[in-house]
Amino acid sequence: MRATVMYGAKDVRVETVPDARLVESTDAVVVVTRACICGSDLWPYNAMPRSEAGNRMGHEFIGIVDAVGSDVRTLKKGDLVVAPFAWSDGTCEFCRNGLQTSCLHGGWWGGTELDGGQGEAVRVPQADGTLVVLPVGPDHALMASLLTLSDVMGTGHHAALAARVAPGKIVAVVGDGAVGLCGVIAARRLGAERIIMLGRHAARIALARDFGATDVVSERGDAAIARVRELTGGLGAHSVLECVGLGEAMLTAVSVTRPGGAVGRVGVPQENAIPNAKPTFYDNITIAGGPAPVRAYIEQLLPDVLDGRIEPGRVFDRVTNIDGVPDGYRAMNQRESIKVMIEF
Amino acid sequence: MRATVMYGAKDVRVETVPDARLVESTDAVVVVTRACICGSDLWPYNAMPRSEAGNRMGHEFIGIVDAVGSDVRTLKKGDLVVAPFAWSDGTCEFCRNGLQTSCLHGGWWGGTELDGGQGEAVRVPQADGTLVVLPVGPDHALMASLLTLSDVMGTGHHAALAARVAPGKIVAVVGDGAVGLCGVIAARRLGAERIIMLGRHAARIALARDFGATDVVSERGDAAIARVRELTGGLGAHSVLECVGLGEAMLTAVSVTRPGGAVGRVGVPQENAIPNAKPTFYDNITIAGGPAPVRAYIEQLLPDVLDGRIEPGRVFDRVTNIDGVPDGYRAMNQRESIKVMIEF
Repeated sequence: MRATVMYGAKDVRVETVPDARLVESTDAVVVVTRACICGSDLWPYNAMPRSEAGNRMGHEFIGIVDAVGSDVRTLKKGDLVVAPFAWSDGTCEFCRNGLQTSCLHGGWWGGTELDGGQGEAVRVPQADGTLVVLPVGPDHALMASLLTLSDVMGTGHHAALAARVAPGKIVAVVGDGAVGLCGVIAARRLGAERIIMLGRHAARIALARDFGATDVVSERGDAAIARVRELTGGLGAHSVLECVGLGEAMLTAVSVTRPGGAVGRVGVPQENAIPNAKPTFYDNITIAGGPAPVRAYIEQLLPDVLDGRIEPGRVFDRVTNIDGVPDGYRAMNQRESIKVMIEF
Repeated sequence: MRATVMYGAKDVRVETVPDARLVESTDAVVVVTRACICGSDLWPYNAMPRSEAGNRMGHEFIGIVDAVGSDVRTLKKGDLVVAPFAWSDGTCEFCRNGLQTSCLHGGWWGGTELDGGQGEAVRVPQADGTLVVLPVGPDHALMASLLTLSDVMGTGHHAALAARVAPGKIVAVVGDGAVGLCGVIAARRLGAERIIMLGRHAARIALARDFGATDVVSERGDAAIARVRELTGGLGAHSVLECVGLGEAMLTAVSVTRPGGAVGRVGVPQENAIPNAKPTFYDNITIAGGPAPVRAYIEQLLPDVLDGRIEPGRVFDRVTNIDGVPDGYRAMNQRESIKVMIEF
């Protein structure tokens, strides 16, 4: 089968790899119908040390179950399924509490040992715990939005929950990538009164406004912080979604949060310290978040997607096939594209 | 009147200062009957740059109202009152939401402009918002416990709330000072199933056990982290109370928190970065807390103090008069004393 392999920074190749196959009795094999490239894939795209073995890539996919192991109970050949960006057994202490990203027997797609989503098929460990059957056919018109349930929509939702978005709150979103845009959707869905998007890219701002952003702040750094404060009567936002991961973005996020407010961080942190420990202390600002347990959110968000109440699939502004994956990385890295969908 | 003034590290003096007096119509003057020295007073005691003017000290006191301004409505001469460690108007956006430490018209005791609690009398700004009348006489047997409502008991309670202590939870407390010990009381009061105290000092450990600690970890650093993990089935504590403020203590706190858990930080941070941004992200650990809005907690905790259900006053292991204040600082700094009470 063919799949995406990254060998180092800027070196993404589509290659023939061993076919996905059942290994454990709890596995399924899924033939991928849709996948995509994630903003978080750009971190290794820009910084991965050279590797002889290469890393299999992709952690967001929808596909059709092709085979199941003897212990799989909830899935059968032919089911259309969506996979969360982490696999999990569904039964451990953390899964039972809705934190499947910390599953004691789970893990992450791709790398050197497992298949990734950016390939023709995937061996899915812990298939019963991991996969969610979709009640539609593989060519359903809402497939793009359904695909976002594997990561970015659930991740935006997680940021909003971690930032304690609720009716009447003023929300600020740091980061105008697909996750930030889904954060706008999530904030509106949870009843935010005002949603301030920090971003500059025209197409992204337009989409953010469509999704519910009420204000846009296009300044950077201290000027952006001053502008958010100005928009919020000097107090800052109640809830701030940090959807980037760079130290500077985190500094902006904590600086625009009002006393007693919360930052929900879902951008993968590129530095190992959270800045402004003192001001955030004196202001009783809560810092929460992490990898979204999207497995817990798929069922919650699915009805809103199927009813068309939310349209997160609009974050895809480019579609390609597997041969176009390397150029898709390039396009997202150069901010030509918000998010690239791969059709198989 | 006489009051405590700090002129630099290790230089605490008791001096004659101008009498406390009404300045604003919203002020009260309180004649102090009990006050105390706080662990947080030891930060300037060890590091304050030399000052010609000196800083008036003390932010925890009980006293009798001696005079009220013309706009004071809820207090009268003769009332016995307890003061929170921050003063606040009780009416602003933040006060109405129970975050009086962020009052838009509030502030902190002492310094160069205001009286501090470690003196014979205090001018209290925003008296209606700040002071709480106690329904007992000034020589009540529980005065020591009532005095802790001005700071350490409310601060321990805040740490426990920020760390989301609840029935059935495993709690770890980093710091065996008065606040950590009150954190044990608060954790037990909120229904924690197990309370692990990290500490080494025999008298403090004994008191922690009396207050409800079920386990004591006396190792330091990595060994302490390993021991807490061992005690918690490898997973860590659900709720961790950081009651020190040093970077090393924060590192221990985040390292003993289980995925999905929370750290409630109330130790005044001495460094401006929160460590381990990456592991805490991957584990979805929440970091919350700050200066406790003890004004919001006094009424909540008062019945438990008056009924004897909690005995936070046991953290006082030394009593002195105002002349003994400098030696009280020395004794607390050398860990001869957990907390020193001052009788007037």
